[in-house]
Amino acid sequence: MKQDNITRDAASQLIFTNHVAQVLDGLVEKIEPVSVHVLVDANTASFVLPRLQAESKVISNASVIETGGAGDMHKNLSTLSGIWQRLSDDGATRRSLLINLGGGVITDMGAFAAATFKRGMPFVNIPTTLLGAVDASVGGKTGINFNSLKNEVGLFADAELVIISTTFFRTLNSQELLSGYAEMLKHAMLTSQEMTDRLLRYDVTAYEPESLLKLLQENVNVKCAYVNEDPTDCGKRQSLNLGHTFGHAFEELALERKSPLSHGYAVAFGMVCALVLSHMKEGFPSDRLHTYANYVRHHYGVFAIRCNDYDGLLQFMAHDKKNNTSDALTFTLLKKEGEPVTGVKVAPEDVKPALDIYCDLLM
Amino acid sequence: MKQDNITRDAASQLIFTNHVAQVLDGLVEKIEPVSVHVLVDANTASFVLPRLQAESKVISNASVIETGGAGDMHKNLSTLSGIWQRLSDDGATRRSLLINLGGGVITDMGAFAAATFKRGMPFVNIPTTLLGAVDASVGGKTGINFNSLKNEVGLFADAELVIISTTFFRTLNSQELLSGYAEMLKHAMLTSQEMTDRLLRYDVTAYEPESLLKLLQENVNVKCAYVNEDPTDCGKRQSLNLGHTFGHAFEELALERKSPLSHGYAVAFGMVCALVLSHMKEGFPSDRLHTYANYVRHHYGVFAIRCNDYDGLLQFMAHDKKNNTSDALTFTLLKKEGEPVTGVKVAPEDVKPALDIYCDLLM
Repeated sequence: MKQDNITRDAASQLIFTNHVAQVLDGLVEKIEPVSVHVLVDANTASFVLPRLQAESKVISNASVIETGGAGDMHKNLSTLSGIWQRLSDDGATRRSLLINLGGGVITDMGAFAAATFKRGMPFVNIPTTLLGAVDASVGGKTGINFNSLKNEVGLFADAELVIISTTFFRTLNSQELLSGYAEMLKHAMLTSQEMTDRLLRYDVTAYEPESLLKLLQENVNVKCAYVNEDPTDCGKRQSLNLGHTFGHAFEELALERKSPLSHGYAVAFGMVCALVLSHMKEGFPSDRLHTYANYVRHHYGVFAIRCNDYDGLLQFMAHDKKNNTSDALTFTLLKKEGEPVTGVKVAPEDVKPALDIYCDLLM
Repeated sequence: MKQDNITRDAASQLIFTNHVAQVLDGLVEKIEPVSVHVLVDANTASFVLPRLQAESKVISNASVIETGGAGDMHKNLSTLSGIWQRLSDDGATRRSLLINLGGGVITDMGAFAAATFKRGMPFVNIPTTLLGAVDASVGGKTGINFNSLKNEVGLFADAELVIISTTFFRTLNSQELLSGYAEMLKHAMLTSQEMTDRLLRYDVTAYEPESLLKLLQENVNVKCAYVNEDPTDCGKRQSLNLGHTFGHAFEELALERKSPLSHGYAVAFGMVCALVLSHMKEGFPSDRLHTYANYVRHHYGVFAIRCNDYDGLLQFMAHDKKNNTSDALTFTLLKKEGEPVTGVKVAPEDVKPALDIYCDLLM
């Protein structure tokens, strides 16, 4: 698909506020949709929707589309088809508006549903998890899992508006907060040692909405800068893939084991592998690798793998979207914090030692 | 979905030739795909693929994806899902290439599959029917039928390349040639009375590949001019919708009756209705309406409707993608040939007399 002529400015449509209802009502008024539909999952239907319905005129008048369950296993063709069906049955048009109210599963899938409904209706993302806020809701990546592969089907489509608020995170437990924090740590490592150290000292599990909103704004802007420079992920944006080739493979292995691993935890573990490989191939400092690995072991524990998992993991990595050539695997690595290198080709047999060291560091 | 920043030049990627294999091999060499996949239906698998495999190196080395049957009823989520599955199983990447070899069903659905596979892989359209060549293969509209509605799910995505050749039409019967010709007549009516008269005199069913290729090139360029001016169909491109609000409703009614109507025939009949409404609302000359209606009755026959079909037809029209407001129906009409008017709002009760006159003229 030709996308050379697409330009985007992810930052311009991004609002950080802890007064969501007020901001949303004001902005939707400008869009003037002929109808509003709000997509929620079982969690946000219970914990978020009622409060927003009470506070926001737009949400209280919207038709509610609730997906079956919550979680990544529901980010599939069957749920997507159900969303299209409801939009169609409810008579949504290209001038209607879909508001995606939920975590990354809801914003990824809802955005894809909207972008492909009648060849594209506008949508707004309101992430309700830290992971969703820092990762999925911004940057135009949409899609579903397919054929046991993460985001195998999807496209690039921008929200009219993304509203990020930390007030939604009140009901998240420590694991959910840490899951999002892994992506924040990734952005910090892409930026500087100073930013990384600041984040390693901050206690996200203490949940302090105002300081977190400030930290989040700085952090999401790191992502936006990469996205704006390379919206369709052909070059510099691949820096954001740090830890993700390993991380996605861990997620897929976990799915195969029928005990799903949250995306953020998978990224936290994947980044340990990526830093090991960075040390081996790009001279990333070993003391910083150990600092990060210790943090991960302490806060995230470990995703346990055995030698007989290696070939399966390599297979998953070969299927990763970023791997466009068939012989070698492609990784984003770091020379040092703030200095990413994209497109590093590594032979599959050289990846195995990195998995060995991952096991040594965490298990 | 924000698409304001997308610019397209449909004409630049469009090639008219009766030496397909040679042109294709030369151009694909420049794209340098890591793998090539060719999508065919049962018809093109039998009648077109073998010859192209013999003549084209690219096609002979491509992995073949064959959809189940042929025809619009296969343009659905299940077939689409099968295409994604094969691309995924065959290890296609974002640097692979999908060649859609078939009629409008194959190019619409294959383009949608490619544009959403791993967030977008490049594709080439090679229409093998006149209807596909003049209509579906150009202009970036892709998608599938869903919830009994035409193209309810889809998006705008441009082919890298569209190769149009009349050599494929040798195996088409008169009905299939006339089906495509209806869209050519539409483009002529949007352009001038001179072009319309020229087409009304030409006998497409005689199948003369060289004169038809020339006529097709002139004709497809009419479409390209509209597409380039308004790629996402928000304004002037809606001129191309002439006859389609009625036509799609006829197709949907025919589907409901379980005896599908080809898109071109539906458009031929739909244009009779649109010209009746044009006469009623915009003063379109009645002699030209009769000239066209006589041509349609003589060459296309009639799609028979009764008064008790009217409400169903109006329902289908209200669901049409172009109808973004809920109260009135929106039509593209003609003041005269060469002078389209888009966005004409007509109350549903005013549409019924046009259906009455359609019946009077054709039945």
